[in-house]
Amino acid sequence: MEPRALGAGIRPYGARSPHETASRFFRPTTIPEEASSRTPLQDTYGIITPSSLHFERHHAGVPDLDPAVHTLTIHGLVERPTVFTIADLKRMPSVSRIVFLECSGNSASEWRGAGEADVQRAHGLTSCSEWTGVPLALLLKECGVDPKASWILGEGGDACKLARSLPMHKAMDDVLVAYGQNGEPLRPEQGYPMRLLVPGYEGNVNVKWLRRVKVMNEPAMTRWETSKYTDLLADGTARQFTLAMDAKSIVTRPSGSMTLPGAGVYEVTGIAWSGRGAIAHVDVTTDGGATWLPAELETPVLPQAHTRFRRSWKWDGSPARLASRATDATGYEQPERTALVAVRGVHSNYHNNAIQWWNVAADGSVTNGNS
Amino acid sequence: MEPRALGAGIRPYGARSPHETASRFFRPTTIPEEASSRTPLQDTYGIITPSSLHFERHHAGVPDLDPAVHTLTIHGLVERPTVFTIADLKRMPSVSRIVFLECSGNSASEWRGAGEADVQRAHGLTSCSEWTGVPLALLLKECGVDPKASWILGEGGDACKLARSLPMHKAMDDVLVAYGQNGEPLRPEQGYPMRLLVPGYEGNVNVKWLRRVKVMNEPAMTRWETSKYTDLLADGTARQFTLAMDAKSIVTRPSGSMTLPGAGVYEVTGIAWSGRGAIAHVDVTTDGGATWLPAELETPVLPQAHTRFRRSWKWDGSPARLASRATDATGYEQPERTALVAVRGVHSNYHNNAIQWWNVAADGSVTNGNS
Repeated sequence: MEPRALGAGIRPYGARSPHETASRFFRPTTIPEEASSRTPLQDTYGIITPSSLHFERHHAGVPDLDPAVHTLTIHGLVERPTVFTIADLKRMPSVSRIVFLECSGNSASEWRGAGEADVQRAHGLTSCSEWTGVPLALLLKECGVDPKASWILGEGGDACKLARSLPMHKAMDDVLVAYGQNGEPLRPEQGYPMRLLVPGYEGNVNVKWLRRVKVMNEPAMTRWETSKYTDLLADGTARQFTLAMDAKSIVTRPSGSMTLPGAGVYEVTGIAWSGRGAIAHVDVTTDGGATWLPAELETPVLPQAHTRFRRSWKWDGSPARLASRATDATGYEQPERTALVAVRGVHSNYHNNAIQWWNVAADGSVTNGNS
Repeated sequence: MEPRALGAGIRPYGARSPHETASRFFRPTTIPEEASSRTPLQDTYGIITPSSLHFERHHAGVPDLDPAVHTLTIHGLVERPTVFTIADLKRMPSVSRIVFLECSGNSASEWRGAGEADVQRAHGLTSCSEWTGVPLALLLKECGVDPKASWILGEGGDACKLARSLPMHKAMDDVLVAYGQNGEPLRPEQGYPMRLLVPGYEGNVNVKWLRRVKVMNEPAMTRWETSKYTDLLADGTARQFTLAMDAKSIVTRPSGSMTLPGAGVYEVTGIAWSGRGAIAHVDVTTDGGATWLPAELETPVLPQAHTRFRRSWKWDGSPARLASRATDATGYEQPERTALVAVRGVHSNYHNNAIQWWNVAADGSVTNGNS
């Protein structure tokens, strides 16, 4: 078992152990360029998602962009339209922030009750990284924004030129043109060599492979904010520009498809996040909601970031129902699915932040307990 | 330049862009198993070091340990000697913390003035990760520590069975038996499947591939704390068990071997850290020390973690001398090399935390300015 011989030598760039096989989940598809892959939340620790396991959602595949020639053009309602290279950006004042991303289509399987078998399939369209970049506000000020401008459009350099509108107040607040992720350049599937990073807003507006920002006085009404990424309500109307992600939490261990080896003490752990600020507290139940008890939050608790929570649980071996419930700094509390459906109906694919239940059977098997 | 065709599809596990080539530095060696490799600090962002670029220091190579059979034995002055599997540890209450590691031999090249040409070669034996594991104190309490015990020994599962002693007060404070790094299992070269993580203490005591913890009433006086990792003073005596890393900072951009493309505005950025707590402030000079001005610290500023600092600098194109100087929460200020040498002499290979100077010539070339 223990090697007596010398082990492997130093090397220029590391890789994970061949014993580890966690991977992003996706069902077989004939169009892998217009698809998504999901983070194995049950296998991750802390709040940083390994870049290699960050969820993906592409609409026309991952372009291969050469950072030596790729540029960002800012134009429209500005005094000085400007083209920025990556080298330009890297000379400018930068910001690093740990921020979650979540596809607004995350958890869509759970709208009508128990959908997917495990936490990765149900909720794996969220991840959290340390992002580094230049404040978009700084670039916009360099270009001289027209006072009557009220929206911007961000356009990607992928084949479909994915484009989304953002209100100017957000663009001038905390949006980054990010070129770094977890200490190294952005990964290709995360927008290499640069992307919009819009803290707390739905994933789709964090435009990857960013090539153009147009300053406007109205939203552009692109296909990604009209036919997609709007929330169909029960009366047939749709909510539009529902950009901030509401407070949410999920227990990641124990979670669906796991089996507890027997009665005893376990750690119940998971992640919580809110697009509207920091998580204030997370409560955990192990008795189907009869009692909710406070979880410990791992510090630092950062705004618009995953927050790790934990609570010890002594399992007596009888059937149990587990869930977590997050409250954010605004006082907003994560709802039950029934409360969400009462307002939103069951036809929305987006913005499902309902409480996730897990059932633990007497044999230790854990299944999706949503109802 | 912009692809019209669909890009690449989703995939189970990502990799960096082929356009990116940053790598750990090491000189050619016939014994890569007893060697070190250095983080490209000039190419990293924020405070998280990419796991693939975390520095390495091995004394007998990287063993290939099977997590299904590898165990940790705690014995010695305890009531209940116990063997823990990885599965045991993962059920227990865990902690995640962003913590730097630094080899105490980092910056050794700079004891006598300018040594290495760039920041990676001079100072690349430090990195910072989010680590996850079980508090060692919890495991020790499970085993029932004899009240007269005052030290522990941690032993690795590498071929040389590297072993280091730690005082009990530290073992009972914030030491982790870590199994996670940056959201995924430890990398092999960082001790997979488990290591000691001793916040703020020199890298060598963060024993990798941990297989055994012995509880003792005196230090073990292993070869790694007698013939190595002691600090030879000018009078021929040596300091021993100099475990906490003192406050330190380095400007990583601009830094040695870079060339500034011309006069103008630049961001001066770098990292600061202290083994004794959080960084309180970092001052930056661009005029050879005539004036020191406060740098902005990226939040959150975490104890025993890298802290990113920044300050804008308008370079007028004439020769300049840059440096940073960190002060930690204890009030301790990073010294000049001459002050360090006055106390420690020039024969110590370890614990060089002196200020690093960079000279910028009129042609924009940056060189090591230590003297």
